[in-house]
This record gives sequence, C-alpha cells and structure tokens, in this order.
Amino acid sequence: MADFISFGEVLMRFCAPGAQVLSQASSMDLVYGGSEANVAAALAQWGTSSCHVTQLPDHSIGIAAKQSLLSYGINTNHIIHKPGRIGIYFLEHGIAMRAPKVIYDRFNSSFEHLDPSSFNWDEILEGARWFHWSGITPAISANTAQACKDAIRVARKKNITISGDINYRRVLWNYGKSPKEIMPELIAQCDWVIGGITDFENCIGLNQKTEDFEQACVEIQKKYPQIKFISTTHRKTFNASHNNLQGLLWNRKKITTSKVYDIQPIVDRIGSGDAFMAGLVQSALHNKSENATIEFATAAATYKHTMPGDVLVASVTEIESIMEEKNIGKLLR
Amino acid sequence: MADFISFGEVLMRFCAPGAQVLSQASSMDLVYGGSEANVAAALAQWGTSSCHVTQLPDHSIGIAAKQSLLSYGINTNHIIHKPGRIGIYFLEHGIAMRAPKVIYDRFNSSFEHLDPSSFNWDEILEGARWFHWSGITPAISANTAQACKDAIRVARKKNITISGDINYRRVLWNYGKSPKEIMPELIAQCDWVIGGITDFENCIGLNQKTEDFEQACVEIQKKYPQIKFISTTHRKTFNASHNNLQGLLWNRKKITTSKVYDIQPIVDRIGSGDAFMAGLVQSALHNKSENATIEFATAAATYKHTMPGDVLVASVTEIESIMEEKNIGKLLR
Amino acid sequence: MADFISFGEVLMRFCAPGAQVLSQASSMDLVYGGSEANVAAALAQWGTSSCHVTQLPDHSIGIAAKQSLLSYGINTNHIIHKPGRIGIYFLEHGIAMRAPKVIYDRFNSSFEHLDPSSFNWDEILEGARWFHWSGITPAISANTAQACKDAIRVARKKNITISGDINYRRVLWNYGKSPKEIMPELIAQCDWVIGGITDFENCIGLNQKTEDFEQACVEIQKKYPQIKFISTTHRKTFNASHNNLQGLLWNRKKITTSKVYDIQPIVDRIGSGDAFMAGLVQSALHNKSENATIEFATAAATYKHTMPGDVLVASVTEIESIMEEKNIGKLLR
Amino acid sequence: MADFISFGEVLMRFCAPGAQVLSQASSMDLVYGGSEANVAAALAQWGTSSCHVTQLPDHSIGIAAKQSLLSYGINTNHIIHKPGRIGIYFLEHGIAMRAPKVIYDRFNSSFEHLDPSSFNWDEILEGARWFHWSGITPAISANTAQACKDAIRVARKKNITISGDINYRRVLWNYGKSPKEIMPELIAQCDWVIGGITDFENCIGLNQKTEDFEQACVEIQKKYPQIKFISTTHRKTFNASHNNLQGLLWNRKKITTSKVYDIQPIVDRIGSGDAFMAGLVQSALHNKSENATIEFATAAATYKHTMPGDVLVASVTEIESIMEEKNIGKLLR
Amino acid sequence: MADFISFGEVLMRFCAPGAQVLSQASSMDLVYGGSEANVAAALAQWGTSSCHVTQLPDHSIGIAAKQSLLSYGINTNHIIHKPGRIGIYFLEHGIAMRAPKVIYDRFNSSFEHLDPSSFNWDEILEGARWFHWSGITPAISANTAQACKDAIRVARKKNITISGDINYRRVLWNYGKSPKEIMPELIAQCDWVIGGITDFENCIGLNQKTEDFEQACVEIQKKYPQIKFISTTHRKTFNASHNNLQGLLWNRKKITTSKVYDIQPIVDRIGSGDAFMAGLVQSALHNKSENATIEFATAAATYKHTMPGDVLVASVTEIESIMEEKNIGKLLR
Amino acid sequence: MADFISFGEVLMRFCAPGAQVLSQASSMDLVYGGSEANVAAALAQWGTSSCHVTQLPDHSIGIAAKQSLLSYGINTNHIIHKPGRIGIYFLEHGIAMRAPKVIYDRFNSSFEHLDPSSFNWDEILEGARWFHWSGITPAISANTAQACKDAIRVARKKNITISGDINYRRVLWNYGKSPKEIMPELIAQCDWVIGGITDFENCIGLNQKTEDFEQACVEIQKKYPQIKFISTTHRKTFNASHNNLQGLLWNRKKITTSKVYDIQPIVDRIGSGDAFMAGLVQSALHNKSENATIEFATAAATYKHTMPGDVLVASVTEIESIMEEKNIGKLLR
Repeated sequence: MADFISFGEVLMRFCAPGAQVLSQASSMDLVYGGSEANVAAALAQWGTSSCHVTQLPDHSIGIAAKQSLLSYGINTNHIIHKPGRIGIYFLEHGIAMRAPKVIYDRFNSSFEHLDPSSFNWDEILEGARWFHWSGITPAISANTAQACKDAIRVARKKNITISGDINYRRVLWNYGKSPKEIMPELIAQCDWVIGGITDFENCIGLNQKTEDFEQACVEIQKKYPQIKFISTTHRKTFNASHNNLQGLLWNRKKITTSKVYDIQPIVDRIGSGDAFMAGLVQSALHNKSENATIEFATAAATYKHTMPGDVLVASVTEIESIMEEKNIGKLLR
Repeated sequence: MADFISFGEVLMRFCAPGAQVLSQASSMDLVYGGSEANVAAALAQWGTSSCHVTQLPDHSIGIAAKQSLLSYGINTNHIIHKPGRIGIYFLEHGIAMRAPKVIYDRFNSSFEHLDPSSFNWDEILEGARWFHWSGITPAISANTAQACKDAIRVARKKNITISGDINYRRVLWNYGKSPKEIMPELIAQCDWVIGGITDFENCIGLNQKTEDFEQACVEIQKKYPQIKFISTTHRKTFNASHNNLQGLLWNRKKITTSKVYDIQPIVDRIGSGDAFMAGLVQSALHNKSENATIEFATAAATYKHTMPGDVLVASVTEIESIMEEKNIGKLLR
Repeated sequence: MADFISFGEVLMRFCAPGAQVLSQASSMDLVYGGSEANVAAALAQWGTSSCHVTQLPDHSIGIAAKQSLLSYGINTNHIIHKPGRIGIYFLEHGIAMRAPKVIYDRFNSSFEHLDPSSFNWDEILEGARWFHWSGITPAISANTAQACKDAIRVARKKNITISGDINYRRVLWNYGKSPKEIMPELIAQCDWVIGGITDFENCIGLNQKTEDFEQACVEIQKKYPQIKFISTTHRKTFNASHNNLQGLLWNRKKITTSKVYDIQPIVDRIGSGDAFMAGLVQSALHNKSENATIEFATAAATYKHTMPGDVLVASVTEIESIMEEKNIGKLLR
Repeated sequence: MADFISFGEVLMRFCAPGAQVLSQASSMDLVYGGSEANVAAALAQWGTSSCHVTQLPDHSIGIAAKQSLLSYGINTNHIIHKPGRIGIYFLEHGIAMRAPKVIYDRFNSSFEHLDPSSFNWDEILEGARWFHWSGITPAISANTAQACKDAIRVARKKNITISGDINYRRVLWNYGKSPKEIMPELIAQCDWVIGGITDFENCIGLNQKTEDFEQACVEIQKKYPQIKFISTTHRKTFNASHNNLQGLLWNRKKITTSKVYDIQPIVDRIGSGDAFMAGLVQSALHNKSENATIEFATAAATYKHTMPGDVLVASVTEIESIMEEKNIGKLLR
Repeated sequence: MADFISFGEVLMRFCAPGAQVLSQASSMDLVYGGSEANVAAALAQWGTSSCHVTQLPDHSIGIAAKQSLLSYGINTNHIIHKPGRIGIYFLEHGIAMRAPKVIYDRFNSSFEHLDPSSFNWDEILEGARWFHWSGITPAISANTAQACKDAIRVARKKNITISGDINYRRVLWNYGKSPKEIMPELIAQCDWVIGGITDFENCIGLNQKTEDFEQACVEIQKKYPQIKFISTTHRKTFNASHNNLQGLLWNRKKITTSKVYDIQPIVDRIGSGDAFMAGLVQSALHNKSENATIEFATAAATYKHTMPGDVLVASVTEIESIMEEKNIGKLLR
Repeated sequence: MADFISFGEVLMRFCAPGAQVLSQASSMDLVYGGSEANVAAALAQWGTSSCHVTQLPDHSIGIAAKQSLLSYGINTNHIIHKPGRIGIYFLEHGIAMRAPKVIYDRFNSSFEHLDPSSFNWDEILEGARWFHWSGITPAISANTAQACKDAIRVARKKNITISGDINYRRVLWNYGKSPKEIMPELIAQCDWVIGGITDFENCIGLNQKTEDFEQACVEIQKKYPQIKFISTTHRKTFNASHNNLQGLLWNRKKITTSKVYDIQPIVDRIGSGDAFMAGLVQSALHNKSENATIEFATAAATYKHTMPGDVLVASVTEIESIMEEKNIGKLLR
C-alpha cells in the first residue's frame, strides 16, 4: 500500500574505521544497505510511503538488516526471510590519492536463491505509484532476474511509473547470462532510466562510440520509446577526498543540468547515486519542474558525501538549503 | 583572588562522533563548556589566574562540569551548586557543504533559576583586574540578567576592566524582555565590546543600516563613551570545512586588522570566538600593542578550529608560532 | 490497526560506558526507550502488531527517537511531533555493591506539554485487542494524566483489555496532584495490574500494612472489581551484579509463581520490568495458561538483564529455552 | 621445517562488542582464527616451531588473515592464496543464562574449493614431529576431506605423531557424505584423538550407548589400535559466565584427570578446546608425564576463557602458575 | 594553605581495554595517578582541602598529569615542572584466575631526578593539618628519599599529623640503598602507619616471624613510640574477579576490625589501598571513632574496586550507604 | 637468510585519537614501529624476504613489538630480548596550521643498552643482498653506534649493498659524541645515502653553504667515492593537512626527479620517508631504471600519508596505480 516500491538485495557492509585500510582493522563499522533500499530509505524520510521488497536470511542478522530498513520508516511487509546467508561487502574509504576499495562477498546469498514465484507482485504493487529496480538485481542470478522481470511486467500492466538504475557492475553477472541478453528487455519498459555512457555500452549496446550523453540518450530512446527521462551524474575525481558533481536530466528533447558542486572533503561516497535517484523520484512524485528535479537530486547526491553509511539522512529542507546556496556550511544558533 | 573573573552558564555538550549526523549516533562525545568559561579556560592555561562564576546542579553531572573547569586550572570557589538540571546542547559537526547543527536543550537549567542575591560580587571581584560577561547570560532569564547587571555594577565601581561579548542568540531571549531593553545598559559600562554588525543591530540598535564595521563602532562609541575597544572577527565560509578568518580591533580611532587565516580542514569551530576573546584579554593584561593583540587573538581563534571541544588547548608559544608563520604545520623532531 | 497499543513518554538515555561512573565519562552510550514503548518493542519483535502513541520533539533527535521505535517494527503512525525538548535520563550502571544511578532530566519535555485533545483515541484504538499504560504517564503533568484517562475510557468502552503498570516513581508527581488523587480512577478500569506492595501503598492506599502480596491483591480487587490479574516480580538483590528474580501472578483466586532465576552477572537491569510486562501480554494474547504466562514473563525479564539498553532483544524461542532450562548458557554450533 | 604442522580453515570472526546481541551492533570486533590454526598459534608462542597450512583468498582480507597467523610466529610458507571468499562466523557472547550464539557464514570459501593436489605434503611435512588436523576439515567438502586424508597418509608414512580433534559440528557435513563415511579412516591413523562421547557417537559409532568416557575409549582403541591417547574436557555449565572445567587423558590403560577449575566470569570460551589441544602437544613434545600433560592442557584451556579472541595469548610460565595454584588472581608488583 | 599535603610521584597509566591482555591492545586507556596523589584526590572530592606536591615534566603530557589532579580539586601550586620524562606503568586487568599484570616503566623520570632543595617545605606545610607520604617515594632515588625526609622533618617540627603508607615494592629500591637503611627513620616520625606484616618485614625488620598483625603492631610501636595507629587491610583473593576485604586499625591498645566485604566482580583494584588511606585521613580529620574510621576506610577501599582508574570517585554519602548496608546495589529512582 | 637486513630500534607509539591534542586524550592508539623496521615491513609485504635486527625488552610489550614485525612477514630470528624498557614516542597529529607534535620518551631503552658483541653479523648477513641502517641508531648510544659500525663493516666485506638514511634528529645524540665524529665513517661505506642538505650539514659537514641538492651530492660523493646514489624528497608544507612531495635521485651524474604529488588531506605522515626508502630498495633489487625507481619510491611515500600508523600497507600494484595516475581516488567495483 506504499506509493514507492523498490526491489533489490540488502547487504551487510563492514567498513574499516576512519582512514584505516582493511588489513589494519581490529573492528569494523557495520551498516546495512543496498542500492534500491537506499532509495526507499531516503524517500521514506521525506514522507513518501515506501516499501522495499527483498529476501533475507531468517537468523538474527537477517532480522537486523530488516530492522535497519524499518528504522527509516520503510514498509517491510513483503520481505521474505528464508535460510541462507546475507551478502556482504567490505569497504575501505579512499583518502587523497588512495582510492576507496570494495571487496564483494555477496555470492550465494539468500537473495540470490530466491524463488521468483514467492513474490506476489500483483498484491505488492497494488496502489503503488512508482516501482524502482536496478541493474544489480538481474546481474545476480537467473532467479533474481526473473523476479525483476515479473515485477516490471506487473508494474507496466498497472501503469505504474518504472525507474531503472542501470548500475553496471562488471564483477557480478556470473550466472551465464551477459547484461545484453537480459537488460534491454527490462530497460525497454522503463519510464526513467538512470545510467551513464559506460552503463549503456555494457548493458544495451550503442551503435557508435560516443562521449556525448545527449547523443546516447537520443539513440537509446529511439530503441526504447517508452523511456521518458534519462538521467546521470558527471563526476570529476580530483582525488578520493575531492570531487565535483553535476546532475544531468534528459527529457526526450533536451538536457537540463544542475549546478556543479565542489565536494571537499568527502566522508563516504557510497550511496550518493541512490540519493540522486531518490531525489529524482521525490521531485517527480511532487510534479517538480525538470530544473527543480535535477537540482534537488544533485543536491541530495552531494549531501550524501558528507556522512557515513549507505543511506542519505537529511530532510528536504536541509537538501534545499544546499541547493539554494543558503548558509552553505554556516553554523546557525 | 583571581585576575580574571568570568560569569556565565556552563553546558553539557553532546556531539555526534566523527562525521555522523545526530540521528546516526549510538554514542555521543561529551565535553562541558560555555562561552565565558571557555575564555577563562584558555587564560588559565596561559598563566592568568582565572575564576569562573556560575550555578550548577548539585548532582554528579554538575560536579563533573565543575571538574572540567578545574582541570584547566580555573578557580571554582564561587560556583554555587543547587538542585536543578544542567543546560545541554547537541552538536553535529558540519562537513563540506553540510552545515554544523546545534540543538539547544538549555532551558529551565539550574543557572536560569539562580538567585542573583546569592552571588557576593563585592567579595568575588575583590582584587580582580578584569571581568568578562557575554550577551548569552542576560538572554536566559530575568534572574541571570540581574546577576549580570549586579556584577557589572560592582566591577565598574571597583574600576575593573569590563569586557562584554554581545554573542546575540536569537533563540534565547524567551523571558519577556528584548535584547534592546536589557543590553544597552550593560554594554554602556564596558571597556571592551566584542561583536559584529548583526549583534549591534539586534542588541543596541544602529541609527542606520551599514555594512561598515568601523562606521558602526564610531556610532556605538558615541552612544557609550566608556567603550575603549570594539573587536570582531570576519569569517568567510567557503564551506563547513573551509573558512577564512580575520580579526579586527577598533580603538576609538582606527581599525587594526590581523592577517587572514585560511583554515582547512576545520575540526570544530565551536569556541573559536571564545579563544579570540581570551587572546584579547591575555594581550591586554600584558600591555601588548594593538597590532600584537589582534594578531594573537586571531591566531588563538584560528588554532581552536583544529581541535575538538569547546576549549582552546594550546600554549602561548604554540599560538605565537602560528601567528609568526613559523613552521606552519611542520613536523619537528 | 495494531493489536497492542501503548501510550507513554520516550526518553533519551545516556549511559556512562562500561563500569565508569558518570563523572568519568568522556562519551556516553545512547539509546531511546520508555517503559511503555519498551513493552511494545518486545511484542513487535514477537510478531504482535504493536503501536506506540506519544509526543516527541520535531527536531532530528525527536526523529531519531521515532526511528528507534520503528526499528523494532512498532507502528508510529500516531506519534505527534511538536516543538520542545525530549526527556533525558542519565544512567550509571551498578557493579558489585555500587548501586546503579539514574539522574532524571525529563521535566518540561514535549510530552509533558502535550495537548490531550490531539490524540483521537477512538481512531487510535479501533481494532485493538490490548491497551497498556503505566503510572509514569499520569505522574508527569495534568495534560498527560488527562490523555491517559481519555485513552483508558475509550479502551474500556471498546472492551479492549487494559493493563496498567503502576510503576510508582517518587521523584515525578510534581504538578500538584498526588498519586492517590489520580491513580485509583485509572486502575479501577484495568484488567491487568502490575505492581508491588509499595506501589499499592503509594498509589492506591491499602487498609493495613502488609508484606503479603496475595493479601494485598485480595484487598485491591475488592475495591476494584474489574481487575482480573495482578502481577509482580520479587527481586532479591545480593548486589548490583547479582540478583534473584521470581514472577508472581494472582488471578482473583490464587498466586501462581515462576521458578526463581539466579542472575549473575547483570549487564543492565533497566527494562526488565517492561520485558516482564511484555511477556504477560504476549502470553495472554495467545491464551496461555497462568503457569505458562508467569514463567514466560519471568524468563523474559530475566533475559533482559543480560544485554545493554532499555529494550529486550530476543525471540520467543530464545526466551522459552531459558524458561525450559534447555542449554542454559551453552554454546551450540 | 617446523616441528608442528597443522592444516585447517582460517575464518574471519566478527563479534558483537561487549554484551550486545548481534542485532544491536553498529560495529563488530574482528579477529581471525580457526581450530587448527589456534593450536599452532599457542604452540608458536611457547617456542615450538609451527607451520599452518591452509588456503586463503588473494585479496587484502586474505592477506590480513595470514598476517594474523604470522603475528604469533606461525610459519605461513605453505599457505596458498587463491581467488574466493574467506569463511566468516558471527559471534555473540553469552552472559549469565543467555547462551553464546554462533552464526556460520563459512560455506563456499576459498578453502572449501581448494585443490588437494596443490599441497605437496611430502615437502610440507619433511622434518616435522607432529601433524594436527580436526574433524572440521573433512566436514567442509570432498576436496578438503581429500587433502586431509593425503596429509595424514604422508604423516603416517613419515612416522610423524598425528593428532585429530574430532570437533563434530552438526551444521557442516553438507557435501553428501556423513561423518561415519569419512572420519573412521582418518581417526584410525591417529596417535592422539581428542573428543567426547558425542563426537565418538556421531563420527565413529559406538557399539553401545555409554556415558562412561573410559569405556568409550577402550572400545575405540580396540577398533583403532594405532590410537595411543584419547583426551577430552568435561565442562559443567552453570551458566554462560560460570563453568567448571576438567581435563581427562586416557592412555590405553587408565584415565588421568586434572584438577577442576571454577571459571567465573568467562570472557570468551571460543578457542578453549584449541588451547587444550596445544597444551597436550606442547607437553608431549617435551615428554611430560601424563599427569603434567593433562594439568598443563587444562590450565591452558582455562586460561583461554579469560581473554577475548580465538587464540590463547599466554606464556608457559603464566599457565603453570595457574596450574600450580600460585598467586591465583593476585596482583604482584 | 591546604589541610592535607601529600608528596609523591604521579604516573601515566596505560591499561589494555576490557579483558584484553597487553599484547592484544591496539589502543590503551589512559589515566594519571600515583599512590599519594590518589589519596589527595579522594580527600579533595570529600571537601578536605588538599595539595599534592610532586615534580612533573614540562611538556604537554606533564601538564595533562597536572590537569588530572586539578580536576579533582587538588591544589597543584607546589608542583614543579622540569624537563624529563613521566613515569609510566602498563596495566592488564586480571579476570577470573588470570592475575592483573603491572609492567613498570617508571625509572629515570623527572620525579626521580628532582632536586630536594627545590621544595620549600616550610612554606608548603604552613597551616597544614596532615602530611602523607608513602614508601614508594624513598624507594625511587636518593633525591626523592631526601625530599621525603625533609618534608617529614618539617612536618614533625610543625606538629602536623604524619601518615606513611609503607607500600613496599620490591622492584623499585634500585639506587643502592635497602629499605631497612632508609625507612625506619621515616617511619619513626609517623603518627599513622599503614602496612601489613610483609611490609614490616621488608622495611623495618621484625624480631620474630609472625602472622599475627596485632603482635607485629605491638613490636613496632615499641621501637617507634611516636606511632599512634597502625592500619592495614586483609584481602582474601578467591580469584582476580572475586576478593574479600576487611580493614584493621590498631590504636596502641587493640585492633578494631571492619565488616568483611565480598567483592564480585572486581572492575579495577588499583588504588583501593589509597582509597582506604583517604578514608582513614578523612575520618581522623573529622574526629570519628575508631570503629567509624575503619568502617569508612574499608568501605571506601571496597567502593574503589567497582570503577576504572586509580582514583576513587565517590561522595561520602555513597560510601556511607555501602558501610551502612543500605540499598546495596539497588536501583533507586 | 633474508635478502634485506635492517638494524634499528623499534618503538611503541602512542597517538592521541583523531584530532585530539595529547592532553585531551583519555585513550591513545598504539602501534609499534621504527624507521628501519618500517622499511623492512614494506619490503616484506612486497615479497622481498626481510629480516629486522634489534633488541627488545623480554616482557609482554617487547613480545608485542616483535609480533607487530612478524605480522608483516618480517623475519625476527635475530631479535634479542633482554630486560629493560621499550622506547616510546607520543604523537599528536597536525591539522591545518597546527603542526604534528612528537614527544620522545625513548631514552634508556633496552636497545640503547645493547651489547654490540651479542649480534653475530657474519651469520646475520650471510646470503643477504642489502643492509639498511639509519642515522638514528648511532645517535642513541656508543653501544648502538658500535653495533651499527660492526654491521656495516661486515656487510661491506661481504659486498652487500648498503643504504644509510641519515635521518638527523637533533634531540638524540646525547651520549657525548657529535654526529660529525661518528657518521662520516659510516656513510663512507654506503652505496645509497638518503638525506637532504640539512642532514648533510649536520652529519657530514659541507664545504660551503648551498641550497642546491645536486651540488651537495657532488661534494659528498667526492669525499666518499663508494656512494653511488643519493636520494631525498622535497616537501612543500602548505599546512599540516596539505603538502606537496617530490622525490630526487642522484646517480653520480645527474638528478632524476619524480612527478610532484599534491597530498590533501594528510592522515599520518610518519613513516613516509621509510616508505620512500623501501621504494628505492624494492626498485633497486628488481633492477628498475632510475626513473622508475624514483617514481615508485615517491608514490610509496605519498601513499603512506593516507593511512594511520608507521608502516605503509599497500601492494606494489596499488602504488603503481598512483604512480601511473590510473584511477586516482576512483571507486571501482
């Protein structure tokens, strides 16, 4: 009965504290997150009723993962708990020229082995206004790809807005299918597609090599006429602690760009793309202009860099104050 | 029997660790501080005998607050312990474009309910060379305003140098009086006034809108001929982690400015104004030139940004080495 | 639409880490909890749909308190956020002969100033099977007493089972009413009353001094014929780290007692009474025998002593294994 | 070229800090360990040259695991690094009646997928005096069972003393073989067998149900005449924080028992069996009497309960002072 | 101008966190303390004006040590800061049968090299009622022994009560003198001597071997007729976490004994002897009966076991509630 | 039997956590390190067999120091454990304009008192390809200077490449010799010398004052014709958090310079010179070009600034990716 429904894996994230590298750690900071759930978490904080669908282990760590989603106000009624492991990733923050490092230990998870038929999408999606998935899900297993396909099909049928974050991850896609065999059919049914040129090349195929985002958008939309919006961020990485970020939103006609944010220092860039996605959904559900939409989404993504964890924790007002350049960084009391 | 006497509330400060936002915290870092006590703490470390006057609860947290002042070498003989609560504030550090956040939970404190007659200012101020108050105290309650007024009156009578840091805080001033009803009488008796144009506008009233600090000083001094020095800092906030800071000191005739410090990164800017104030007092008590005074005060304020807590912890030598641009940031061993 | 509805204040709890006393702490551990909410938190973990009703500040700490409830699966739809402060308590764990210490800083909270008319009990209680309150709520202010009275009245009307935990706290009750003026009317409408002889003496009045729990129950039930069950725990305190605990349940006819648990060491005894209460409700809602009920409740209370925080975190199975003396303390792998 | 060679998996252990349950943890303490490696770690600290053989991932966490072994002075020259994951287990300490909880997440590890032919046992075991394995290894996969079998065969051929810790873990043994199909052949070649009656029943089969350890030993030795010693500990669990522990050593003729240790409180009982095993090996390699052997091994096991982690960190002198009941728990300075 | 003057070294104490052994620590907890300063710290908290005399390094760690004393309200006006190192000790807490471990790294400290003539005892002791020293100071160097002798001589002359805690530490006494060459002269001038039979044997010499404390007292007093009271504690060590403690006070005529405290668990026993000493002084300065004196001192010593650090942090009321067996370990709220 | 042999003291390093100054710390982070051992640690991680020679205390902290070296894969067979203390240094990180602070407490260590004859250099250096020492060792005592001289003599005889890092530390050199009396003889036998102009002036003497590194190199090489390479880094310190770094390598003919790294923020610059040294050795042992050598060494030094501790923890690949400017600071997954 939520406005926003997302589907995807929830992972346990262990992060080396402070500036330590992984092998220096004698303890690790723990949060739970996942690309699609992170979007739901931001939206739920902003007052958009949100429901995340996934499968988790039935032991106390699986329950802890669910409790983390609950804490943001996400509806977890459609989460299935079954025996198995939870996917894990290890994170080492980047500092200056040292890049952040992610070690995935997510294979063979309870989510990977889900039974697609155990999700009753007709019921789950009843009354929803938006369904969100990402390219991580169909990369994991035939089961998860099937569940994703089922969800999209039902959402399309119910005329629910569908967003897909292509999120190409080279190291997943291990179950015998290539992205190009699976992704096009899913993308074709989306209203909103989030991705950059590399994502398009790997998951859809572009007729010709380009570095021009608009040109790529035009080509994709021709292939997949359902797509109404394509959006991405351009990130300039001076080093791991200093990035520039700009959002782009293509609406079949033209690109609208946000202002460019100079982010220094960066606390934790994981989840900034999900915050961006959440900003797009929140704005679209409130019928904001395209300019307001891309500005809000980019401000949300920027804001995420300033705090630890996978999930953006910020009110709409806080993000808008960044976006409106009011009191940037000033102490008010 | 101290050279320097300050009067004001001491608060418990809970700060979200590292870059966490308040709602992410499962523990909070704890220090005790307060604008006027922070000045005394810096001075005591620099060898100026200092005594802080306040009222605190009589339970073990009130004692812990007193112990914190004692640890810097502050004389606490005139602190009164009475039942009640201690004022609290919650701090979330700013990072990059995310601003620092302060949530005050200081109302109804033991200090707010002090009985002005319980402080024997004649005895407290006996032998002192300097009395310091800030605009936070008269903002809290009629009781605290009265006590502040009493102290200033006695100090004036004893010919003790008086400094007042206007420190306008919009969210205080809840007891039915406006700053303009209370502050002018207090400021009129000061030798040193610390404040910026916004402070003046809110607490004194300026005849005409100005952005020129010197012009404002001239106008104020006309109204309050006792004032000998007015001082402030100009802060340029690029973001929460990167500020420029410059000190200004007006001496009835002209403005003396310090060098401009480029501070990046900022660890904790709370208490930098109090460190500045302490730098002014220390220099004045040692008869430094105006140039040396404003340079030392600004270097002290700058130094405070590099360490956690409310209180500047640094020797005179350490501050002077910043001020003299010797070995800025260099490792010596 | 929950089966179980509780009403009461949610507090911020700051606890000195490990064995430190409060004045030694340079950081404090933070959790959120409250007697009635703790009951809901345990029940929600056990699969009983639970909804907690309260008023909290509208700033980020008020939101963090709500998120804490959400994390256990509690429905927070009827929580009101209004400006004000959150009640706080400071905890110092007891060790050996050193007693635990609680310093309350809960006065003047947003909850204390709630407007009773802002809670639509008819709607809140619709479809519920159980309403729970405690004697802390009517002790706080006339407003909170009124809201409690309203809730009980509506629950009675809807024929919902009502439980009241007398929870007499001497230091509250500051608004001009004594417990005996307020509590009897509320207790009279309860089906379940939780309390010991001291609670009864202070909140109801007993005709004659007794140390016999059963005799006290008989007397109370005569006065308040609606009461069906009275329950309490008997605690023998060898020292702060070593207690014995036994549960008692009186059913108008006789006392049923649980086995006696020897608890050593004790990690954190806060919330053990709330875990006991939750155990009673859970058992009653599942129509357990009186023997099974008191055994489960006492096992739940016992289990709470072994973990930090206000809230019992344990599955029904884990509690039952204690209760059934299976593998007490044994490592299984 | 080490005196002692062990073979077995090394796991990453994440433990909820202090008395927290797993779902309360926002960070977890990290150590690396494994039953067989823990034995090598204790022996290396005691001056017995020790070499641990295993397979680990080739990423920075696999390297960290190796560095952990190195830190104790273990020779790691025969560790193979290959792509894959490291096995993990999650630990929640028990307190009072709350049992310790272990959640295994060790399937599909790099070790599980090792290639038995990649270990050149002839070279690895050259010059060794003792080879140690445990029943965990053949439980993991056909590969690991084969590698274990190979190692035992070569050790037997070289006339190296072989010890096997039966260490029956019900939840492992998932690859299609039962313990009774695999273990007897391995046990038959051992000189020292460590295990209790339950281990024997599950892994070897006993002709008749018995609770008499000596009787079981006699029966097993009849079947497997190579076995010279069978050893075990008897543990009486009052609760998770309070155990009694006694060691037993059967030498084909009779049982020698150690004194009984009363252990309260228990910090971490993981690895106490491995410390016991190490104590047996150390004593045997130094030709201690059977009485001295079982006393030293039991004291080592006892000592392990007093410190966090998988590995006993103690000198021979420290263990002997427990064993000799000198200055038990006394501060000397 | 303080009532109580103590003289002795202040050390930096690094303690392995929790139950870790020293070699497991990747951080260490830091406090500052010293036997005589710990006495002053307790007394200052109890309202007895106290002054500690010592020599410390002039760098920021020497200042931190002084600040630690200041925080308890100790007068530090007679502390001398001179170049050199601060003495250090490393502590590993004992648990169950594992004994606490102290590694001294205190040689060659700034205190060891003090110049006896730099302390003007006539001025320092002016107006004092009590002087306290311990046998640690004359054990360190000829310089410190001389300073101690000087202080005692002046105190005797001024008729100030003198207490000496024999505190025999075998590993000190490295500068070429034996305790028996130095201590008798110092002890001879004391009014109060704190020590047990081992201390007496090592520092004074007893004519005949005895295990009877009273008999030893009689013999000592005969030799040193100035002595009015001899006091000690009897400790029964079940293990490092469980001790019994009883105080004894001999008054030239008879022994008065306190009740016996059963302490379990023990958090940190360091400083319990100093808390005992402080209890004796506090009681004597308030002219308590011998029974009240030994009960208060033993309760103070007992209380110290329940908290980390060198210094007892407790009010007189808290100690009296232990002593009077009121609400032992009970939570009051 | 290692390729690389280093000789030098290993210290205990206590560092104030985060941005705290030393006197704010209530705990300190602990690592073990030393200039020469840090070189061995980096090399061992890179697959170069390395052996560090030193003397350490025989207590558990001395063992912990050894275990730290072992963990990196360093051979510790020639470490001597003898009674005494371990040298300590206290570190306060610099931030912005606040400089890092080091307080040495290293005098009188077990290493300082080593017996030069206890090291059998003939055996230690047998089969080695490289011997490394630094100017810290001969600065400590006549004993350590002698041991260093012995090692160099034997290495020269065996035709092992010798590197000396001049590492001039003004505050050491306390035993009655000046650097110029000792260092020239040692430097004369080196193939590689690491040092800057200040080092040369203090330890060798230059005929004329110069700021030209190449000119200084030419002069030195004339004096000491054995020297084949002289290398140093040029560091530009904007503030403690922002430095530029460039490496220089002189080969008797010309200077080769690395690219200039802009490092911001700096986590911990301790050990960056040792990482540089390790980079030179690693490259030289693999016969890299001079350009590749200085680029790798400078990249290694740069990388060290991004992590806490004395020791660089990084793979060759990670350093090369910095050096090749591939994905600087980018998250790959």
